[in-house]
Amino acid sequence: MKNYYELNEKTVIEYVNNKLDFFAEDAIYECKEIGDGNLNLVFRIRDTKNDKSIIVKQALPYVRAAGEDWPLDINRGEIETRILKLEHDLTGGLVPEVYLFDGDMFCMVMEDLYDYKIMRYGLMDFEQYPKFAEQISDFLVKTLLLTSDVVMEHKKKKDGVKSFINPELCEITEDLVYTEPFHIGARNNVEESIKEYHETQIVNDKELALEVAKLKFDFMNNAQALLHGDLHTGSIFVNQNHTKVIDPEFAFYGPMAYDIGALLANLIMNYISTEARCEDEELKRKHKEYLLQTIKDIVNLFKSKALKLWNEVVTDKMAKTPGFKEFYVNDVLVNTAGVTGCEMVRRTVGFAHVKDLDGIEDDIKRAKAKMDNLNLAKIFIKNRNEITTGEDYLKLIEKYL
Amino acid sequence: MKNYYELNEKTVIEYVNNKLDFFAEDAIYECKEIGDGNLNLVFRIRDTKNDKSIIVKQALPYVRAAGEDWPLDINRGEIETRILKLEHDLTGGLVPEVYLFDGDMFCMVMEDLYDYKIMRYGLMDFEQYPKFAEQISDFLVKTLLLTSDVVMEHKKKKDGVKSFINPELCEITEDLVYTEPFHIGARNNVEESIKEYHETQIVNDKELALEVAKLKFDFMNNAQALLHGDLHTGSIFVNQNHTKVIDPEFAFYGPMAYDIGALLANLIMNYISTEARCEDEELKRKHKEYLLQTIKDIVNLFKSKALKLWNEVVTDKMAKTPGFKEFYVNDVLVNTAGVTGCEMVRRTVGFAHVKDLDGIEDDIKRAKAKMDNLNLAKIFIKNRNEITTGEDYLKLIEKYL
Repeated sequence: MKNYYELNEKTVIEYVNNKLDFFAEDAIYECKEIGDGNLNLVFRIRDTKNDKSIIVKQALPYVRAAGEDWPLDINRGEIETRILKLEHDLTGGLVPEVYLFDGDMFCMVMEDLYDYKIMRYGLMDFEQYPKFAEQISDFLVKTLLLTSDVVMEHKKKKDGVKSFINPELCEITEDLVYTEPFHIGARNNVEESIKEYHETQIVNDKELALEVAKLKFDFMNNAQALLHGDLHTGSIFVNQNHTKVIDPEFAFYGPMAYDIGALLANLIMNYISTEARCEDEELKRKHKEYLLQTIKDIVNLFKSKALKLWNEVVTDKMAKTPGFKEFYVNDVLVNTAGVTGCEMVRRTVGFAHVKDLDGIEDDIKRAKAKMDNLNLAKIFIKNRNEITTGEDYLKLIEKYL
Repeated sequence: MKNYYELNEKTVIEYVNNKLDFFAEDAIYECKEIGDGNLNLVFRIRDTKNDKSIIVKQALPYVRAAGEDWPLDINRGEIETRILKLEHDLTGGLVPEVYLFDGDMFCMVMEDLYDYKIMRYGLMDFEQYPKFAEQISDFLVKTLLLTSDVVMEHKKKKDGVKSFINPELCEITEDLVYTEPFHIGARNNVEESIKEYHETQIVNDKELALEVAKLKFDFMNNAQALLHGDLHTGSIFVNQNHTKVIDPEFAFYGPMAYDIGALLANLIMNYISTEARCEDEELKRKHKEYLLQTIKDIVNLFKSKALKLWNEVVTDKMAKTPGFKEFYVNDVLVNTAGVTGCEMVRRTVGFAHVKDLDGIEDDIKRAKAKMDNLNLAKIFIKNRNEITTGEDYLKLIEKYL
């Protein structure tokens, strides 16, 4: 940490120009800290004269929302850089390009996705991204299947497990997703109007806790594939034509279901948010229809693409046994439904919420949205064995929301 | 490898005296290479005058049975030393004490278990070890449960996963246990008289292959606990009062079931061997009865001790959920039955056999024993969901053998 100092909107410009020959000499700079995360500072530096821009992401040695009392291993940027480069290769560009990683400053300098929007905010504006399901299902199938034992030489895969082990950030997930929301207290953030619902319907439901415990141990022990590890709609940049997944600092070898479920949960919470927040009935109808189609497509495309790609890339001899690929993909999808439910619970009553739900201004609607969300989440967790197709998701969403 | 040379029965004495102040000046030496494994030289050096002895185990950089064509990472002795020390602490001495590890020579100098016998040979002499089930179930429960996420602080457990990752020796298991015996050829060793049975009953049974594929991916992905990794009766020294587990060089974080199943399979194969080899009917009856009791006790004691110890040592909050420990232990036992079957198959038709079966001199009895073994193995693999108590094992053994 000798040469480390926290950058700010002024010092970051000089820092980049010392490191990288990117901006022209006559550049006119505009710089803004745009991070909404908890773990990093994120600066966009823009040369308004020549219309060029760049992103600088600096890791903080603590969790921002909690201050210096919650320290973190700062070296995660190095892992993130390696992952982004790997994901870039595997997916043919569904993540941004990295120009530089600086291990002294724990800084990553990367492609600015200036004509993209963070998906969460785009969806909250009721925008549609017609190519997203196709592109994100590509991202999922390629990053997950191609890093698994189905495909990789097993010794190399184990080198991957070893080099991407990520105890600190996994612990955050283990606590914030799989433990605290199912208890009272800790770092939970439960708004007053749903406190009783949380206690009676979530905390006191021991059958639910048992299923969550199973999913938690799967998360901790099942080193199946190299995950993104935090694939919510705030980790995705989109526009009408392209998708770019960012922020893989939670990456580690874990169950494939964790990435797919996190994504589906965030789309479902946007659906609930749309119902409560959209005042134009026609727009509401269209946006909900778009979300349902997208959810359905992601599940079904993941399944069909995984089964198709399997035949082309499988190397493990036992994995070629008739019926095994169907078993394997089905198992991923069963656990995906469970993760979907856990993510929906934790984003409602846990430490880190989503704006989709918290942004519902009407108190009564917001409380109802959150309770509906918790209720549906329970169904996903408890009935996950029967939730393995896009149609299964749609049936439940239409029945319970 | 600069300072490495292969020891022999002469040079090893001088080597030990240079390294360790163990033998007296007036020692009269006796030294013998006693290894029966494929991966190491094992010397016993004995001072007959003062009745003291010691074991020197040197790692070879290749698989002995295959010669220098099958090279191996030689550094596994260092892992083995760490594991032995850890297992020694966890189990209160159910493994031998290590006096020295030499990283240049890849040599371990350790306690000589001169008043012990390798269990496989003891059992082949129809000896009984009345304390074995009690002691080995202790070994299993303590080494497995205490190194899992149920108990260990999760970040420390992940450090363990990382530091004990063992790609080369895991690959041997993946190939020799979970792949090759279910195909024709490769390094399989199938005696002529059972070739047709192997092909029609094992290789052509695609339903069996599907179940083995599931177990193989569990072995590769489920980083549940720190395993011994090769817990057959040739890795266990016993006498009437004590049990010492040796040779943990295959150790890695994997599914608990792998250790328990390997052990049970080897006891079952001794049961089959006893039926075919023992000519004294009374001794045969007694030894088979002892083996049945031991198999039953190991399964039931593992279960009851794991459930009891759980309450005392569990730290994970979700693992305390009512019903979770029963789910967890049951899941281990289901997979244990599957592993039992895989180990029985591979020791009959795979690369590395057991003397229990190969040592049956009568050709017809040996062929029958091997076919009976394969047949029962299939039941263990396919019906594993229903095999979770000691009584379940006994019923199947008595029905099919």
